[in-house]
Formats: sequence, structure tokens, C-alpha cells
Amino acid sequence: MPDVITSTKNETVKSVARLKRTKERARTASILVEGPNGFTEALDTGMEPLIVLATEDDAATRTRLDDYPAVALHLVSPAVLDSVADAVHPRSPLMVVRRPDDREIRMHNTVLLVGVRDPGNAGTIIRTAAAFGWDVAYTPDCVDMWSPKTLRSGAGAHFHTRFVPIDLNEGVEALSAHTVVATVVAGGETTVDAVGPIALLIGSEAHGLDSEHVAMAAHRLTIEMASSAKSLNVAVAAAIAMHDLR
Amino acid sequence: MPDVITSTKNETVKSVARLKRTKERARTASILVEGPNGFTEALDTGMEPLIVLATEDDAATRTRLDDYPAVALHLVSPAVLDSVADAVHPRSPLMVVRRPDDREIRMHNTVLLVGVRDPGNAGTIIRTAAAFGWDVAYTPDCVDMWSPKTLRSGAGAHFHTRFVPIDLNEGVEALSAHTVVATVVAGGETTVDAVGPIALLIGSEAHGLDSEHVAMAAHRLTIEMASSAKSLNVAVAAAIAMHDLR
Repeated sequence: MPDVITSTKNETVKSVARLKRTKERARTASILVEGPNGFTEALDTGMEPLIVLATEDDAATRTRLDDYPAVALHLVSPAVLDSVADAVHPRSPLMVVRRPDDREIRMHNTVLLVGVRDPGNAGTIIRTAAAFGWDVAYTPDCVDMWSPKTLRSGAGAHFHTRFVPIDLNEGVEALSAHTVVATVVAGGETTVDAVGPIALLIGSEAHGLDSEHVAMAAHRLTIEMASSAKSLNVAVAAAIAMHDLR
Repeated sequence: MPDVITSTKNETVKSVARLKRTKERARTASILVEGPNGFTEALDTGMEPLIVLATEDDAATRTRLDDYPAVALHLVSPAVLDSVADAVHPRSPLMVVRRPDDREIRMHNTVLLVGVRDPGNAGTIIRTAAAFGWDVAYTPDCVDMWSPKTLRSGAGAHFHTRFVPIDLNEGVEALSAHTVVATVVAGGETTVDAVGPIALLIGSEAHGLDSEHVAMAAHRLTIEMASSAKSLNVAVAAAIAMHDLR
């Protein structure tokens, strides 16, 4: 049994903690998975652990890592786990894995996040997309799909999701085979009968979709509300739209 | 123009900061509303400000308070605002108002939160309920509907919502005129044709509804997913159910 690391100055601990930063995740092409659910989902879907930090009492993680004899498990004190993790009340283990590769658009229902900035909303949309079997596309101005907060809201769904980066400034050529549907707060259709795979455009929390992006869509979809003065959370609106368009 | 309060030891500042605690909100029957949107929604719906803290540059709040000559506006430094507010990046103003009274159940569509523990989920459900014109009922083991985090996720919807406390341990007499629908992860109906007002039961994030609560329902509703291994966020599931049952 290795010694328990009790110092946050330990080089391995520091290298893991740095992955809370977007730039460091981009530089190393790796991400930080926190807690037992993400750990299990990641391994179940074939991700390879690079570094694992766990507390001494976390027998489940030790047992699971028996299948990965080449992976060194680093035991850490609860205080070190707290300091490394992004979560306020983190649970063991913390695992570093390679960031899954981005994919190409395909003929499949796809929810396209356009400037979604809140990691909790992005993660919830990813979770919903996975539940309904949709792909997730995202524009460059979105929050990092792989931040610890986004991963947490995704509740393990990230590892079941196909991610597609799309730059709408380069046009919508990539979506030419999709029925493009824009969600708008008011004035759109309340149901859309779409043929073929759908690309569902979801705008930012603050501003919704820009008019230029709405103009790219064949249909505008509005979720009817009791009062037009009210609003829906963006992840809620996306979920209702995905469910309606299934 | 009054002096700007720069000390977190100021008695008014301390009394406002204490309202981040559930017990203090219960003891004083008052709540803390943070940021310009909540401030505006609360006043627009007739709430009376008791105490307002604002930063010096917040002219909009000063102007709005001209209609309330009896209310003292306390100017505070940005550091004091930060320390008093619950939000990580708070915006001026902070306002104390009386906690709106709980109400009785009525013949109206009602979403009933049973042990929902996450303030973000509770707030999002409140926001959705307000958008669709539903009342919100909640059991005693739910998170405080009026915590700063719940208010934040509610995005102003709290002041448009009728709140009804319900203790299911005392039976469901109160719901005898409603069609009670329980949301379950699997095995329920995928559509429900309900007559009369609906009481939609939503369970906790961790466990869903207890079987004894499911047994109280005339219908069990399941949202179809691509794979039974997946799951939906509780606020997303509530939103899809409310939208489907509208």
C-alpha cells in the first residue's frame, strides 16, 4: 500500500488540480472526472485512467482498478481531495482521462448549443440529449463541455454522448441534410413536423439565439407558456423541445 | 446621500447577511432577494421592501425606491455586497422582504415536490411552474423554497407562484379533487389523459418517489428514453411532464 499524500504541494496532486483550468485541459487534452459515478461511467464506456487519486477508505475504486494493473493509484488525504476537486463536497475518486475526441456531424438528431455559457445548463442538456439519444453540437463561444461543473451536471452522460464542434460563422453547410429548428421565446410554431434528422438550435441564457442564427432555420419553435412575461430555463426549454421533436 | 457602509460589522449589514441561514429566515419570516431581476419582480408583484442594500453606482435601484419614501436605502461597498450576498458574483441590490404567506391547495394544476433537496432544481421547477401557470406544493423534507439559491434559480418566478405546504404523512385528503400523477423512471404510462386539475408528484434527486407515494397516485407517468440506463435531471423530468399534461 502506498503512502497517503497529505500535501497539496505534491507534484502529482498539483498536476491534477491544474485540470480545473480550461487552458490546462486544452494544453494536455485531458480532463478531470470527479466522484464515483463519473469514474464508473467513464471506465464502463472504455475510457483509460491516466491518474487516479482516492481516499484510503475508497475500497470500491481500489477494487475497480485491479483491472488496470498499469495504473498507479495515489492515495490522498480527504483535505487533499477537497483542495484538488472542483466540487464543494467532493467524493473519491478523482480521475484524469484523455479528453474524448470531437466527432463529425452525422445524419442524426442533434441539439446545437449556440453560446450556452452556464456549465450547469450545458451539462443538463448533455444529460437530456444522452437520455433521448441525440448528439450534441456546440459553437466555439459555448462553455467548455468538459469542465468539472459541466461534467457534474451531465451525471455521467458525457461518456455516452457524441460531441460535434460547429462554427456557424462558417455557414450551415454541415447541417444541409438536417431540418434546422430554432427555439424562439415567442412567435414560432408550437409544433414542428420535421422530416429527417433534426438540428435543434438552442441560444444563450442571456440573449437566446441571434437573428442571424434564427434565419438559418427552416422552422422556429416556441414553447407555449401561460404568460409571455414568463421564461423557461434554457436546459428546460431544450428538453421540452427535444422531447416534442422525438 | 448617506455614507457608504464599508464594514461587514455594521449591524444592518449583519442582520441582512444572517438571512442566508434557513433558521434566521424562519425566525424573522423574511427573505433575502438578490440582484436587479429579483428586486424588480418582487416590487412589480407588490412586495414591500424592508431593507435595501445597494452599491453607489446602482442608480436604477435608487430611482425605483423613489416610490417607497419610507424605505431607507443603505449604500454599501462592493466588498460588503460580496460578503452579504449568497451569489458568487452578486449584483446590486440586496433586498429584505417578508416571506410571502403559504397558501391552501386549490382546484388547479399543481406540481408537488416530494423531498426535492437541491435548491437549483427546486428553483428551476418553480420557474417552469410559473411559466406554465401551475401552483407549487412541497413536503416538509424539501429544501427551503425561499433560500437564496432557490430564488436565484427561480429567476423571479417565486413572486408569481402560489406555494402550498403539504405533509403526505397526513394522507392525501387535500388532493381528493385532483388527478394525482406520479412520475416514475420506468414502467408507467407514457401519456396520461387526466380529467380535472392534476397533482403531479415529483420525487427526490437521489431516490425518486417512495413506493408509498406512488401508491397514492391514480396514474404513473414515465418519460420514454432512448435507453433505460439513462436518466433525466429532476427539474427536466418535471418540466416535460408539466408540458405533456398541460
